[in-house]
Amino acid sequence: MRIGFLGLGQMGAAIAQHLVGKGHDLAVWNRSADKARPFAERGAAVAASPRDAAARSDVVFTMLADDAALKAVVMGKDGLAAGLAKNAVHVSLSTIAVATGDELADLHAHNGQRFISAPVFGRPDVAAAGALSIVVGGDPACLDELRPVFALFGKRVFHIGARPSSANLVKLCGNFAILSAVETMGEAMALAEKGGVPKAKVLEVMTGTLFDAPVYRNYGAMLVEDRYRPAGFAAPLGLKDMRLVGQAAETNRVAMPFLSVLRDHLLETIAKEGEDIDWAAIGLTIAKNSGIG
Amino acid sequence: MRIGFLGLGQMGAAIAQHLVGKGHDLAVWNRSADKARPFAERGAAVAASPRDAAARSDVVFTMLADDAALKAVVMGKDGLAAGLAKNAVHVSLSTIAVATGDELADLHAHNGQRFISAPVFGRPDVAAAGALSIVVGGDPACLDELRPVFALFGKRVFHIGARPSSANLVKLCGNFAILSAVETMGEAMALAEKGGVPKAKVLEVMTGTLFDAPVYRNYGAMLVEDRYRPAGFAAPLGLKDMRLVGQAAETNRVAMPFLSVLRDHLLETIAKEGEDIDWAAIGLTIAKNSGIG
Amino acid sequence: MRIGFLGLGQMGAAIAQHLVGKGHDLAVWNRSADKARPFAERGAAVAASPRDAAARSDVVFTMLADDAALKAVVMGKDGLAAGLAKNAVHVSLSTIAVATGDELADLHAHNGQRFISAPVFGRPDVAAAGALSIVVGGDPACLDELRPVFALFGKRVFHIGARPSSANLVKLCGNFAILSAVETMGEAMALAEKGGVPKAKVLEVMTGTLFDAPVYRNYGAMLVEDRYRPAGFAAPLGLKDMRLVGQAAETNRVAMPFLSVLRDHLLETIAKEGEDIDWAAIGLTIAKNSGIG
Amino acid sequence: MRIGFLGLGQMGAAIAQHLVGKGHDLAVWNRSADKARPFAERGAAVAASPRDAAARSDVVFTMLADDAALKAVVMGKDGLAAGLAKNAVHVSLSTIAVATGDELADLHAHNGQRFISAPVFGRPDVAAAGALSIVVGGDPACLDELRPVFALFGKRVFHIGARPSSANLVKLCGNFAILSAVETMGEAMALAEKGGVPKAKVLEVMTGTLFDAPVYRNYGAMLVEDRYRPAGFAAPLGLKDMRLVGQAAETNRVAMPFLSVLRDHLLETIAKEGEDIDWAAIGLTIAKNSGIG
Repeated sequence: MRIGFLGLGQMGAAIAQHLVGKGHDLAVWNRSADKARPFAERGAAVAASPRDAAARSDVVFTMLADDAALKAVVMGKDGLAAGLAKNAVHVSLSTIAVATGDELADLHAHNGQRFISAPVFGRPDVAAAGALSIVVGGDPACLDELRPVFALFGKRVFHIGARPSSANLVKLCGNFAILSAVETMGEAMALAEKGGVPKAKVLEVMTGTLFDAPVYRNYGAMLVEDRYRPAGFAAPLGLKDMRLVGQAAETNRVAMPFLSVLRDHLLETIAKEGEDIDWAAIGLTIAKNSGIG
Repeated sequence: MRIGFLGLGQMGAAIAQHLVGKGHDLAVWNRSADKARPFAERGAAVAASPRDAAARSDVVFTMLADDAALKAVVMGKDGLAAGLAKNAVHVSLSTIAVATGDELADLHAHNGQRFISAPVFGRPDVAAAGALSIVVGGDPACLDELRPVFALFGKRVFHIGARPSSANLVKLCGNFAILSAVETMGEAMALAEKGGVPKAKVLEVMTGTLFDAPVYRNYGAMLVEDRYRPAGFAAPLGLKDMRLVGQAAETNRVAMPFLSVLRDHLLETIAKEGEDIDWAAIGLTIAKNSGIG
Repeated sequence: MRIGFLGLGQMGAAIAQHLVGKGHDLAVWNRSADKARPFAERGAAVAASPRDAAARSDVVFTMLADDAALKAVVMGKDGLAAGLAKNAVHVSLSTIAVATGDELADLHAHNGQRFISAPVFGRPDVAAAGALSIVVGGDPACLDELRPVFALFGKRVFHIGARPSSANLVKLCGNFAILSAVETMGEAMALAEKGGVPKAKVLEVMTGTLFDAPVYRNYGAMLVEDRYRPAGFAAPLGLKDMRLVGQAAETNRVAMPFLSVLRDHLLETIAKEGEDIDWAAIGLTIAKNSGIG
Repeated sequence: MRIGFLGLGQMGAAIAQHLVGKGHDLAVWNRSADKARPFAERGAAVAASPRDAAARSDVVFTMLADDAALKAVVMGKDGLAAGLAKNAVHVSLSTIAVATGDELADLHAHNGQRFISAPVFGRPDVAAAGALSIVVGGDPACLDELRPVFALFGKRVFHIGARPSSANLVKLCGNFAILSAVETMGEAMALAEKGGVPKAKVLEVMTGTLFDAPVYRNYGAMLVEDRYRPAGFAAPLGLKDMRLVGQAAETNRVAMPFLSVLRDHLLETIAKEGEDIDWAAIGLTIAKNSGIG
């Protein structure tokens, strides 16, 4: 299969490396070209533009930082959409707004191209291990064609629905649930600590009983160790995701008071701790607000 | 060992049955005596009063519905404390206020008796299976003496600290975290459903990725199936627990905005759905508030 | 009329002074006797106990710090209730729980005594000026008998209902509304200030348009000047009042999310600023949480 | 003075009528031309486009429904900016985003034109009475030139700062404070009503004491009478305004938990009651959530 890959940041590079040397024809592109070099050394073609990459490919993956960056790569004279052949597929791996997912679906349908939205769960280390969870929205037949490629970097695929943006909605729900779990632990730990119980005890009991899941083990350890820098996922990015959840909630007329607390705590955290702290540092804000530290 | 057991409600009976026929001398007591009969048939003595049961025992367990019921059984002329020998142990299994745990610790210390607070995680079916998680506060040497008895009905024991009420604090944190997980799923599912994605899909992705834990599987299924009656744990009991968390938070000067949302949603649920609905029905309230159903 | 007055703290003394030298027979009592001396010098009798004061009076006013202090003065061997004649009246001026209002109503009814709950709006300076607003619950005929006395220290009387505690409920609603107005100004001012607009401008526009009321003028000035010490009304007292509102809300099954925010902000303020700060300092907390100061 | 007026909706028409027959040269424009006819009959010129109106004027007022409508009228080939002479003034009366205020300021500065942002407080009946409050951001000298014109339809002018968008920020704060007052009354009234006290009593006490201001009298009457249709200001418009407050809060990193409650309650109200209800109907939602009605 001829595959294009646009966006070689931390996540993109970790995914794209699984596509090299597997018998596919790979063409990569990145805004700053130096990120493409390691792929060139391993035999990938380096495309001159998103359009160029798309023109060489049956399937083009995009992994961009946000909605604006993705649209910039897709649209315009040198964009992906201008190069992609009829019936070829654009697979967007980014966490984007539901509205953006719908917009891209319309654009590609209008061009006779196919579109799959496939945001992923997993930090860069999981991507490096080829063990991402892939949440897919789009035509199921198209997904079936892609399964062998998804298998190269993902360990599980969830098909949500025929509408591509349905996957974006579920991915946003997931990020909301992650930060909710962090807030929950943060509040419980602050209460325990001020009541004389080490916060590690709270985590031990939680993960030892009903809460034996990665989200509690991984983020719980960060809270127990107050380990928020360097940021694995910076608070302003978390705020951006929560804003996207909020936009979907507003469009769909759904009140989400937990989401409201999370947005307020992210704002507070950024205002007091700076823009470069991990989004899990809402736990630090909760602790400080209770007079700890 | 001579063991007393006070309180043979749904949870108490499920625990106490594991203490019969294991070579211990068991004396049981319940406010309404008919609940004691099955135990008498299996060889347990039926005590005339909490005081009587305590007088016959080295260790007395209590499993009462709330703080008031527990205090009524412990204090007074015919109470547990009046009958318990010096150095004998009272083990309270109930979910009670931190302040009540402290009060009982003081009372027993004043009497030269020992006190262990050991609230448990697990619904009645888990208790019936002898698989509860036991959260223990109190003297570690005393706990060591009790481990063989705890092993009869619990599969894990967590020692929190030397202060008995430390276990009550952690247990309350746990119940708070459970209801937080329910709220989180409820909000995510309402958003998904109004956005055209079945709520079962949200649960499938969550439990298939970072949220693979019993709290999500069990409560998630209730939310997906709208299964809130008969109540496994009624909303007013959940409200009582959240009030106890709130009291601890107020005493310790800890702001807990998630807790605030949970209390408000429980109140709303009880106001609109009645007193006999499961506490997980905050998910129903969230759905209805978004215009579903 | 023979009048008793129990509780000569800041508010009580400011009220009681208006009852001296107006042709009534006044008997005063205070837990620490020195507070009664200035009244003795002006001709009032100093009672030996609440019971003694009540025995000398047709009407006994109480102005105590909280529910516990009030109950301690009313009940017991030397309490007000033990001394008050049949058909004589107890007028409680304190801000107390609805449940306490009901409890006292039952007690006095059982004794054949009359009971009026009459909490007041106004800080000590307003009391000193004889300009309090009096919110009355109880029998309207009884209220009519008392109007000439109320007129000595109040400028307005609101009759809420025949049930004495109805006045307590409305008074608690009022205190909730005051703190809500403070929170509203605090959030608006923090937003304005971080956006480059002096907070005094926000207040000027508010009080110059739709918000031309004492609650905005008075508390607004405190927020603009960051004037929170010495406390006119300390944050822990405010927290106590909000807890009483919360108890009434829980009893009546009413979700009050604004109340939840206020409780959390009071807890945060006390945790970070100390117990001796004015309740309006939730405005300081809001500002600090946004990175100001 | 040669005056242009763009946007003759309910508010715009009510303002513009005060500019007719006062010795000024008035040119009006509205997207649907029939709204301009009554002004033509009274001697105003009807402009062919925003550009045409601007070309005939020293000062052009705009009163459009939202940010998008305003930008559409200002920008483009036939837009206001294309017609306005150097040094002529654009006065925007709409409630718009802070960011939009900044954008327009930049645009006009770039063109050598002057820009004043002057959102107003007051519903259409106040506008009809010529009694609006005008909140002004922009050059004070420019404001001084305009004062005689502002005096024709406003009774008070507040100058906020030299940056035009500073007025938009304060106007948004004001709308936030209005809805906060509604929520406060709604919660207090629901508590009172479920506690047996008519909600009118709460309002009587509030407006009779510390809350004697138009916002309580006017909105309080709506809540007491459950008068939410036809909408004076529809809930989706209120939601739009709260979204603009939220955007400013996010940009400035300010946590506003009251705002969060308001947004959630507006969403809930729209989801359950429909899009055509007044924004004050959050009071209805609060009541229903407590089981009333």
